[in-house]
Amino acid sequence: MTAQEKLINKNNEGKFICIGLDSDTIKIPDHLKSSKNPILDFNKSIIDKTSDYAAAYKLNFAFYEKDGASGFNTLKSTIEHIPDDVVIIADAKRGDIGNTSLMYANAVYDYLKCDSITIHPYMGTDSVLPFLERKDKINFILALTSNPGAYDFEKQKLQDGTFLFQQIIKKVKEWDSNNNCGIVFGATKLDELKENIDLFGDLFVLLPGVGAQGGSLSDVVEIFKGADRIKYLVNSSRGIIYKDQTKYFANVAQKEILNMNEEIQKILEA
Amino acid sequence: MTAQEKLINKNNEGKFICIGLDSDTIKIPDHLKSSKNPILDFNKSIIDKTSDYAAAYKLNFAFYEKDGASGFNTLKSTIEHIPDDVVIIADAKRGDIGNTSLMYANAVYDYLKCDSITIHPYMGTDSVLPFLERKDKINFILALTSNPGAYDFEKQKLQDGTFLFQQIIKKVKEWDSNNNCGIVFGATKLDELKENIDLFGDLFVLLPGVGAQGGSLSDVVEIFKGADRIKYLVNSSRGIIYKDQTKYFANVAQKEILNMNEEIQKILEA
Repeated sequence: MTAQEKLINKNNEGKFICIGLDSDTIKIPDHLKSSKNPILDFNKSIIDKTSDYAAAYKLNFAFYEKDGASGFNTLKSTIEHIPDDVVIIADAKRGDIGNTSLMYANAVYDYLKCDSITIHPYMGTDSVLPFLERKDKINFILALTSNPGAYDFEKQKLQDGTFLFQQIIKKVKEWDSNNNCGIVFGATKLDELKENIDLFGDLFVLLPGVGAQGGSLSDVVEIFKGADRIKYLVNSSRGIIYKDQTKYFANVAQKEILNMNEEIQKILEA
Repeated sequence: MTAQEKLINKNNEGKFICIGLDSDTIKIPDHLKSSKNPILDFNKSIIDKTSDYAAAYKLNFAFYEKDGASGFNTLKSTIEHIPDDVVIIADAKRGDIGNTSLMYANAVYDYLKCDSITIHPYMGTDSVLPFLERKDKINFILALTSNPGAYDFEKQKLQDGTFLFQQIIKKVKEWDSNNNCGIVFGATKLDELKENIDLFGDLFVLLPGVGAQGGSLSDVVEIFKGADRIKYLVNSSRGIIYKDQTKYFANVAQKEILNMNEEIQKILEA
């Protein structure tokens, strides 16, 4: 089964939440901090309690790389702990010339055995090609991000009157001949999501910035429902994993994703 | 001394070459392949023979990350082997939202103790800010890259008639208030370098693609001389480190960079 098929299965089961494992030693519950590998223990507990309800986990590589080789080992062990049917997204935002991107693809897809990666499009087609050749994976290319800096370049207008991020979405549709592409589209402004949803075509959409930075979960689900469309993932990190600071943190995380799934279900069935 | 000051010192000594340690187990001399850590042995030999003549080393992170934690350790040990006066560039092409970029900055600048990093500009100002706050470092932002895909987005024309990469160079000049920014500018087309050199202002310029992919070393040096300008690094990877496959590979690498330095000197003194 390809990564995209796994994700569609999850969508069909009513699962649209991607849990961001932005796990930070400073922010995890105090009682874990004295363990041998606090981050791994934290991640395992979260995964054990949420993997039946999540569509995917997104691992933010920076949170692991900052600890060097030991962080890399924690990343690998976390990935190994995630059940096969749940998609693992390497939020690594890579992108380089062809032979270098090939090595990043090897690192993420072969060594770490992730199902998916986030990619910087700036360097163009040949920089993305080694990822596109992995037919069983899903490659999420940055289109519109959820941070203020999106105005600097992503929302620059090109000569044909479209925004750069729209040009990138068009190009990703060309890149999708193996049905293994998706886009990252920040859901901070609901109008932008509405205005662009038809442009997405059949691409899978990963939406950061819901809740914390902008539009609510139900708003986003309404918009996709209104467009008669599935194939999307709403990312939630801090809102799930740091909701509680006691020894019941993983149970609270479970309750939080169950609440989110219920909120989604109500809209889909309305 | 800041990283930029170190680089200017090197330029003033006639040193403009950055050696790219794109070290690949498949491409290093056969006699090293049976050692305990072939890549580290290879890198150390190259560094021992070339560090007196190079301005900087550029470590392409993908070549190390593909080997996981052990690759990360090789990267760290290689960095530790480079003398203090030679600048170490983390060719990691990072770029993410603020709190994530901060962790990448910590990984590269604190954990790995590099002097410099390459950065994707796509996500805009706040994605770059944690790097800009490191006043003693030098941050090379991708402007125009040397690969064919540069036409897809970098060379898209904006509504004011300028190219996206030119807009990025203008923004990097705004970001340079701490004198710690540079740009990556592919030297594949000499006309492009000539046409844009005045736009660079006082930014340090890292030039990939010289020789292997486009313009010759002497052409590039002539153009900078014609503009009465220093503050640049010409990257060379394969042309130096894989020039020879015998046990004399490091001596040959030394001879190669000495030849390049001599070629530069002749032009500068002409």
